[in-house]
Amino acid sequence: MAPIRAAEIVAVGTELLTPFRADTNSLWLTARLNEIGIEVRRKTVAGDHVGDLAAIVSEARERSDLLVTTGGLGPTADDVTRDAVARALGRELVLDEAVLAAIRERFERRGMRMPEVNRRQALVPAGAVALPNAVGTAPGLWIESGDRACVLLPGPPRELQPMYDAHVASRLRDRAGERHVRRRVIALTGQPESKVDEIAQPIYAGFAGEPVPIATTVLASPGRIELHLWASGTDAGALDRALESGVSRLLPALGRAVYSTDGRSLEEVVADRLLSRGLWLAVAESCTGGRVLGGLTDVPGSSAWLRGGVVAYDNAVKIDVLGVAPDLLRAHGAVSEPVAAAMARGVRERLRADVAIAVTGIAGPTGGTPDKPVGTVVIAVDGIAASARTFRFAGDRSMVRQFSVAASLDLVRRVLD
Amino acid sequence: MAPIRAAEIVAVGTELLTPFRADTNSLWLTARLNEIGIEVRRKTVAGDHVGDLAAIVSEARERSDLLVTTGGLGPTADDVTRDAVARALGRELVLDEAVLAAIRERFERRGMRMPEVNRRQALVPAGAVALPNAVGTAPGLWIESGDRACVLLPGPPRELQPMYDAHVASRLRDRAGERHVRRRVIALTGQPESKVDEIAQPIYAGFAGEPVPIATTVLASPGRIELHLWASGTDAGALDRALESGVSRLLPALGRAVYSTDGRSLEEVVADRLLSRGLWLAVAESCTGGRVLGGLTDVPGSSAWLRGGVVAYDNAVKIDVLGVAPDLLRAHGAVSEPVAAAMARGVRERLRADVAIAVTGIAGPTGGTPDKPVGTVVIAVDGIAASARTFRFAGDRSMVRQFSVAASLDLVRRVLD
Repeated sequence: MAPIRAAEIVAVGTELLTPFRADTNSLWLTARLNEIGIEVRRKTVAGDHVGDLAAIVSEARERSDLLVTTGGLGPTADDVTRDAVARALGRELVLDEAVLAAIRERFERRGMRMPEVNRRQALVPAGAVALPNAVGTAPGLWIESGDRACVLLPGPPRELQPMYDAHVASRLRDRAGERHVRRRVIALTGQPESKVDEIAQPIYAGFAGEPVPIATTVLASPGRIELHLWASGTDAGALDRALESGVSRLLPALGRAVYSTDGRSLEEVVADRLLSRGLWLAVAESCTGGRVLGGLTDVPGSSAWLRGGVVAYDNAVKIDVLGVAPDLLRAHGAVSEPVAAAMARGVRERLRADVAIAVTGIAGPTGGTPDKPVGTVVIAVDGIAASARTFRFAGDRSMVRQFSVAASLDLVRRVLD
Repeated sequence: MAPIRAAEIVAVGTELLTPFRADTNSLWLTARLNEIGIEVRRKTVAGDHVGDLAAIVSEARERSDLLVTTGGLGPTADDVTRDAVARALGRELVLDEAVLAAIRERFERRGMRMPEVNRRQALVPAGAVALPNAVGTAPGLWIESGDRACVLLPGPPRELQPMYDAHVASRLRDRAGERHVRRRVIALTGQPESKVDEIAQPIYAGFAGEPVPIATTVLASPGRIELHLWASGTDAGALDRALESGVSRLLPALGRAVYSTDGRSLEEVVADRLLSRGLWLAVAESCTGGRVLGGLTDVPGSSAWLRGGVVAYDNAVKIDVLGVAPDLLRAHGAVSEPVAAAMARGVRERLRADVAIAVTGIAGPTGGTPDKPVGTVVIAVDGIAASARTFRFAGDRSMVRQFSVAASLDLVRRVLD
């Protein structure tokens, strides 16, 4: 049988055609499929219309080795994926007695009778293999026809992900052949995307034409830029060596802006440096209002290197809790290098930390002055080294806050280098 | 001419077929299109392959009144949207001298010569109208053929959004006829999704069959649930009345769990209550590590009602900064109602606030005990009223933290009711 190389993902659900919900299952699935060398060629979002969906499924199966659908396996009339796939494949829907028994039993375990509507979930296209659902009633389905395969997965991520890992991954691995997609990420901060592109583009321009072709893309969010390099082929060692060579040619040009080449976030890099040096961190935040601390405490185990922090939104808090001198605030204003330095010193001393960061600034939309417009942010570090720096970030309130978080973490990263 | 009712959106870019980037432009566009009564029927994500994309464009134009593409308008060989659309429509690409002059001028204003590669951006399908790009070189394109329209927009949101608002919205409004999509959102917290569905389903089951049919969907994230109701038609007043009637039938059944019916977030509701009562808030966080404060300070103007807060990750911070008695910590442990209450009192007094919230808990993955497993979270409020409550949240670290944030805000909302 020809190996499976190219996949399409179809996300089913009218709610995915509203402004309020994006298909994110496909990102998770793409990561899993890429690991075993299967590329995603196209993604479609379809509403709960059996005719539309049947047409999408027929066309996708003509183009691609593998079709994965997500959603539309529930018990109600809106759940049309089973019907649409059966129609597209020209197969009848048949009642799978084992699936019906499993659904009925699930209800009985909870002391309930299975509602009649749930019988629909036991109807499967003839020849399909039902994939057990550990956390819900909707079974998934695995359907082969000739060289090609079609997998129907439930929409909720907490049902889809364990089902894929338990029942789909091994089936696909058997069919994908010995192919791998390898990926490296160079993560950096403190540079605008255009500057990074200007530096990196001449270097990676030739990557696609090398013996092991390397594809590249730049992903940017405020204050954080990722250069992705990836390659696919049968020799995992050769792919890794090619990517390592690509990374090592880019690094010298990008310099100290790079904070990781192994997938770690900026928060994780700061965490690792604190841990390995046995240092405690404290944070004082004004304009970022808890976002620096929130990101740091996303890292599991953060209680081993983070004392905590103070969100000193009000000047009274800067004075009472952080011990900033009222004269200093009067003379320089809350958004100034002397005040940021005093906030950093205050939080370090009061929280008995070894190193501290302080952020104070004007995130907007109001509060700017001709002298200190919206986007003016001062970041200071205290302990190990003491310094303060003033930034002018562009963008709206949310962007200014994101830039400020990244710049704060980057300052402490560099101090700990 | 027949009015434009049904749209498809095609997002172009191989990076959108990686695990790292989702198409989010389509959410923004869907909101804008819905406002003028245009529904999105299908969304596709395509890579940078001219043949694939031309096939997608041809098929989409047979099905739908309007096709909107995003991305693939840059100057490089990877940017294939112009070529693909020209091929699909059977039109030649012609050089638009005005577009070329505008691109050249843009470079010259910055003292640069236009790179030869940017000439590609001035090639447009014959008969297309170029849409000026205020912040980049890539013009958009508006192409009509018969009753149908095709709009090509650049991928970066900061280019796409102003271009749509300045040059696409009015053209579409002229073609969409007098049609509206109206929407109402009932937002609630403190109930699991299944419980909300059980309560709401019997009420809204009949909505789709009423004279003004109302569509419904439930969107859930940890600790926050949104019931969306929407209706489309030509009489905006009738739509609004039907939706108001739907909302008013659901509200009594949902009770105090509902925090807004006007689109405000839980943070905004808390902000409005504090502002209208002239009260100051302070927050003490342990397991949420700044996420409560971070959400509150996302609200513009939060400095008018938020003094700030303390992230007391370490017990020493609870003692030194919040004044929690060491004996209390020894006797009850950090995750206990007496300690949470003392944290709330401490942060309220030290930050001179009128009302305070404190959160302490075990977010995991480690730190759980048989007595207090991962997911145990205690939330206390002080000032106005004083109370503490223990929760057991399910899920991973991130989910426990999200549930805790919502429950904290909800507790203070109810106290301020």
